[in-house]
Amino acid sequence: MKVNENYKNIAQSYLFSTVGKKVSEYMAANPDKKVIKLGIGDVTLPLCKCVTDALKSASEEMGHKETFHGYGPEQGYDFLKTKIADYYKSHDVELDNDEIFVSDGAKSDIGNILDLFDKDNTVLVPDPVYPVYVDTNTMAGRKIIYIDANESNDFLPLPDENLKADIIYICSPNNPTGAVYNKEQLKKWVDFANKNHSIILFDAAYECFISDDNLPRSIYSIDGAKTCAIEFCSFSKMAGFTGTRCGWTVVPKALVFGEMSLNKMWLRRQTTKFNGVSYIVQKGAEAVFTPEGQKQIMQNLDYYKQNAKMISDVLTKHGIYHTGGTHSPYIWLKCPNNMKSWDFFDYLLNNVQIVGTPGVGFGRNGEGFFRLTSFGSKENTKEAVERLDKFLK
Amino acid sequence: MKVNENYKNIAQSYLFSTVGKKVSEYMAANPDKKVIKLGIGDVTLPLCKCVTDALKSASEEMGHKETFHGYGPEQGYDFLKTKIADYYKSHDVELDNDEIFVSDGAKSDIGNILDLFDKDNTVLVPDPVYPVYVDTNTMAGRKIIYIDANESNDFLPLPDENLKADIIYICSPNNPTGAVYNKEQLKKWVDFANKNHSIILFDAAYECFISDDNLPRSIYSIDGAKTCAIEFCSFSKMAGFTGTRCGWTVVPKALVFGEMSLNKMWLRRQTTKFNGVSYIVQKGAEAVFTPEGQKQIMQNLDYYKQNAKMISDVLTKHGIYHTGGTHSPYIWLKCPNNMKSWDFFDYLLNNVQIVGTPGVGFGRNGEGFFRLTSFGSKENTKEAVERLDKFLK
Repeated sequence: MKVNENYKNIAQSYLFSTVGKKVSEYMAANPDKKVIKLGIGDVTLPLCKCVTDALKSASEEMGHKETFHGYGPEQGYDFLKTKIADYYKSHDVELDNDEIFVSDGAKSDIGNILDLFDKDNTVLVPDPVYPVYVDTNTMAGRKIIYIDANESNDFLPLPDENLKADIIYICSPNNPTGAVYNKEQLKKWVDFANKNHSIILFDAAYECFISDDNLPRSIYSIDGAKTCAIEFCSFSKMAGFTGTRCGWTVVPKALVFGEMSLNKMWLRRQTTKFNGVSYIVQKGAEAVFTPEGQKQIMQNLDYYKQNAKMISDVLTKHGIYHTGGTHSPYIWLKCPNNMKSWDFFDYLLNNVQIVGTPGVGFGRNGEGFFRLTSFGSKENTKEAVERLDKFLK
Repeated sequence: MKVNENYKNIAQSYLFSTVGKKVSEYMAANPDKKVIKLGIGDVTLPLCKCVTDALKSASEEMGHKETFHGYGPEQGYDFLKTKIADYYKSHDVELDNDEIFVSDGAKSDIGNILDLFDKDNTVLVPDPVYPVYVDTNTMAGRKIIYIDANESNDFLPLPDENLKADIIYICSPNNPTGAVYNKEQLKKWVDFANKNHSIILFDAAYECFISDDNLPRSIYSIDGAKTCAIEFCSFSKMAGFTGTRCGWTVVPKALVFGEMSLNKMWLRRQTTKFNGVSYIVQKGAEAVFTPEGQKQIMQNLDYYKQNAKMISDVLTKHGIYHTGGTHSPYIWLKCPNNMKSWDFFDYLLNNVQIVGTPGVGFGRNGEGFFRLTSFGSKENTKEAVERLDKFLK
């Protein structure tokens, strides 16, 4: 048997393990110091009551013959898909239920969608980037090219005529930079993709952090996107489902390459290689869309948004260039005094006991940048901001 | 963008839709007749109380900051992996926790495991076969060859010297035939795989139906299996998790091809393209392994086993050749009077109002055979058996 040799080419990242090691060492050497972690990429607030009530009620249903659920539809129950379609409708996007596929999270589908594409496609990713886009394509042996996201384009690169790419990754609001495309910018990508018969894989996992109605929460807010884009979204950040696992993928029926409908291909892929998301979890996700559920998740999102604003405000006060902080849980800042990412990491840990993530860990263009997140507690974030305020003077 | 053209080669199966259509038509034309469905491939008994209690308790945990769980380990929580390892130990198989990967069900992992293998491998599947083995490899463009499972080998084909295969699928107890390999037979496959550097993908989804301690519930009961086999198992049939979604995959650390550890490759695959199973569901699965949980699931399994025995007994009484019925929820019978599968289907539906699945739907060698299942209610199964008893006279 021949193994898939492409696995030899996947770069090993030591980003978070190195961060962890440095923090542990510092804490062991300085037991009296309070270290505040603003590098957290996971939610910290619990599921809202609406959701846990629904999860418990569905669990109870599963214990009785009359209300038990066996195999469900691989693409998700209609009760949930209808709610997701309504959610899109509230943002002026019309989708049919059979264009929505419930998943166990965006990460799974972002990886598995590649099953639908030939190996011989050129993949375009921004640099810096969420490593999964690169690793999943490296595993399949695809050629990857990079487009520069940097200070000169406010970390929102746009296509140009010389670009040749078949599969284009866009994450907006972006991880790690927090930068958000506006409609005009996203329209340029959609036009580029339609003109060149490229496909856009649009990662909308952070759309729930957008507060400005003029910014696109979905790529389907852009005319023409249904013929060139697949969108991935998730309950992870929206409703704290990182450990509960539910998301969805939109594959429009208008998405046809040659004679092949990607919608039909994905349906076939999912019915063959997936068996649907737990009924219980889908009932929990459904509760997110009740009026009470929306109210409860908004409280949590506001909590994170306020943390983000506190961090962004102190950076603005001290004239530090950054993206994100609004419309995003991430704050991506330029290290002061042209410090390198890891030097700033050490400096910050040693002087004000704040932990973040060195930007260079996300790509070459991340060098000299640093990522902070809003997922810590309000109290710790406030204290960290006070420390930064003094330190940056 | 070039799509994966292999999708054009996937055969469309109309097996279950044709069955459904014929049954609906018959029922519409004969509203006074009671049709009994023994074609059901899904469990019908609810989750046991131990499990629903654990699901509810974990749901409650998720609603409080102190006990909330965010992202878990992609490969599953140790609390569950330890229980799975103990389960293997009770069948004299020793596994380390990091050889066990918790999944959202066997079907996902049976499909996704193919990521680890080069396209240029020859795949061996038995005929008749569970269609997923064929379809997932067709999607990847691999060459598929078939080995005959038929009456002459009691639907348990064995390797011979002329066979050249890199990836070998074995499902035991088998779907659709219910046939179970004994240790000597399985040893022949293990020896063959080790000698030829092939890999065995062992589908153990029905191991919980084995009642004879001398029959292997795991391929790792066979000496040498850890250097040639990956095993897939599931809570679906064991504990009624078809709609709850949890399973596991074993990738032994001794499984090394060239310099590549398949265990490390799968870990990398899962950490990149998967985000773990819901914490809540993993807590439900853990409860299956409590003494009370084991007692409760055994009651359900016994219920299905008794149904299977009733069906098997009436066939034996009338001298009808069949496999399965013991150690399996499936009964695979030779159609009386050399009838073809679909003719027998029509005959059975029209004369005794029993619905099963035509064997030819699972492959060429299924022609002239028929699958019944034990997942119906005891009352209906009993009534169906009485009808069969009269009919077969």
